[in-house]
Amino acid sequence: MTRRYAILAPDRFEHDAKTAHGVIRYGSDEVVAVIDPTHAGQRVRDVLAYLDSDVPIVSSVAQALEHAPTSLLIGTAPKGGGLPPDWRAAVAHAIAAKLEIVSGLHEILGIDREFRSAARAAGTAIWDVREPPDVPLFSGDAYDVQAPVLLTVGNDCAVGKMTVALELVAAACASGRQARFVPTGQTGIVIAGWGISVDRVIADFAAGAAEQLVLYAAHEGADLIVVEGQGAINHPAYAPVTLALMTGCAPDALVLVCDPSRTHIESYATPVLGYKELIAVHEALLETIKPAPVVGIALNTRGLSETQARAEIARARDETQLPAGDVVRFGADDFYSQISARIVKRPPLGARHEP
Amino acid sequence: MTRRYAILAPDRFEHDAKTAHGVIRYGSDEVVAVIDPTHAGQRVRDVLAYLDSDVPIVSSVAQALEHAPTSLLIGTAPKGGGLPPDWRAAVAHAIAAKLEIVSGLHEILGIDREFRSAARAAGTAIWDVREPPDVPLFSGDAYDVQAPVLLTVGNDCAVGKMTVALELVAAACASGRQARFVPTGQTGIVIAGWGISVDRVIADFAAGAAEQLVLYAAHEGADLIVVEGQGAINHPAYAPVTLALMTGCAPDALVLVCDPSRTHIESYATPVLGYKELIAVHEALLETIKPAPVVGIALNTRGLSETQARAEIARARDETQLPAGDVVRFGADDFYSQISARIVKRPPLGARHEP
Repeated sequence: MTRRYAILAPDRFEHDAKTAHGVIRYGSDEVVAVIDPTHAGQRVRDVLAYLDSDVPIVSSVAQALEHAPTSLLIGTAPKGGGLPPDWRAAVAHAIAAKLEIVSGLHEILGIDREFRSAARAAGTAIWDVREPPDVPLFSGDAYDVQAPVLLTVGNDCAVGKMTVALELVAAACASGRQARFVPTGQTGIVIAGWGISVDRVIADFAAGAAEQLVLYAAHEGADLIVVEGQGAINHPAYAPVTLALMTGCAPDALVLVCDPSRTHIESYATPVLGYKELIAVHEALLETIKPAPVVGIALNTRGLSETQARAEIARARDETQLPAGDVVRFGADDFYSQISARIVKRPPLGARHEP
Repeated sequence: MTRRYAILAPDRFEHDAKTAHGVIRYGSDEVVAVIDPTHAGQRVRDVLAYLDSDVPIVSSVAQALEHAPTSLLIGTAPKGGGLPPDWRAAVAHAIAAKLEIVSGLHEILGIDREFRSAARAAGTAIWDVREPPDVPLFSGDAYDVQAPVLLTVGNDCAVGKMTVALELVAAACASGRQARFVPTGQTGIVIAGWGISVDRVIADFAAGAAEQLVLYAAHEGADLIVVEGQGAINHPAYAPVTLALMTGCAPDALVLVCDPSRTHIESYATPVLGYKELIAVHEALLETIKPAPVVGIALNTRGLSETQARAEIARARDETQLPAGDVVRFGADDFYSQISARIVKRPPLGARHEP
């Protein structure tokens, strides 16, 4: 289905609406309006120039309906993951207007008694993108995928692993490849319109979920599969999800995404690792299952001046002897062209298991 | 509560009842009867000498009731994880006799309509030990536990990580320590009467579940906490669960449990790692969060002659310069005394996070 999104982000669009920004910048579906009374009457680019979008900002669901949306997207993922109570009326209004509700919240709106019965009465649907489907155990079928698989990994959460994956897909497609982005978290899923929130899958099946995503992308005809990574390999809470993607996607190459300003894993005292340490620990782990090298370092230099950014990129390059760049700040084409020859299909250890 | 178990394992007790054998050998609760018509009239030791138990084997729930059980334990975890259909009548009979039902099956008996309403009518309970409780994210509170934490890791699934943990706890207690076993899988949970099946927890929370288990053991006054490991660090499907225990338990030391006869990860083509590779990959990973050394190698030499077993133990010792032994075949006291001085409290990287 082709969606036309109204994005609900009252009073939060400018500062706290990562999902909204991602969908506007990278989404495959159209955005027809943003709902935020604080900026009503403006365009998205008036508030956030880098999004370079003339989508109108309106004050209410009623006004958004004038732009003929098919779907209401909850535009933020607030701490705690619940729907802010004062947003309930807007969701109810959208359901009554027969809009599909798309939510990346931890709170599952589809089991909310009021919303569920209203959606049934209106004949519309609620898509909770974090709710994973049932998936099989990892089977090894991903080893038979012909297209090379690239996975982004990083020095922490929220450093840009999804963004780098999206930019690399765009650069690869611009160079003539049939590259495909594989979403593994809620914002990526809303952007791409499919995917599995791998961190919500039962631990035994997390690698299997990652495998299913790669198989789907391969089935859709991709000749390069770029998977959005999650967490960090030394993250005290989320490392298991990082590893599930490393085993389940059966990657042929990794791109290391780092925010060089991070000193510690977010919310923990664990120090972030340096470039060479990160390369060593990821490659050593994959050496035991299916070897895959780090082929480039994508830096998130948002917090740095341009001079500082260029110096950090040079430092990463010198230290690792790998291509390095900031694919958002300086564009992805050059970085992609430097790494593309290194993204080649690699076999797993051992022969393929025949069940 | 103190349980008195009747164990249901019709036609399977001898060959396919890992949970039954574990509970008879290591359980803190009493076993009063095994239900298996194939061996009815015999004692457990007549069928499995190594269990050294005179628990009677009977043919039916009705006969088991003569031994005054409080609970019926489903004694196997068959492939697929469902309750064999011809066992339903026995479960229903036990419920009607007001027995608690304890099950480690994947299939959740507590949501079976017939069993649930029967249990309610009889005023008894169904304990599905695989059903995890809601747990918080990993917090780092495990770093403040005073007792050293020992985690068993291994070269594959089903090599003896639980058994080694149980034997080490027994040896430590015999030497005067207040050691406590921490169960992380269904058999361990039934044996200990508490625990969380960490592989059934949502991936984001798996490390948090492991942490809660360690905190519970510490709260109960343990001065040595020995955690049952799961999977293997290079297991294509289960490595994320292995890593969740490595981060979430915040171990101070590891014991490496290996079946030297394994060549490949069970059901996969991935080769198992050698002793030195296993030590290197586990220690390298923990070096990035909270360093913990491998302090000994516990071999499962069941498939070897005694001469072969002693040679393999010597080889492991020579190759790694670590204590090595088979704690089931040759007893755990000597091995425990060799490793105990190496199990010392170690700090995490970075200062403790204050939220």
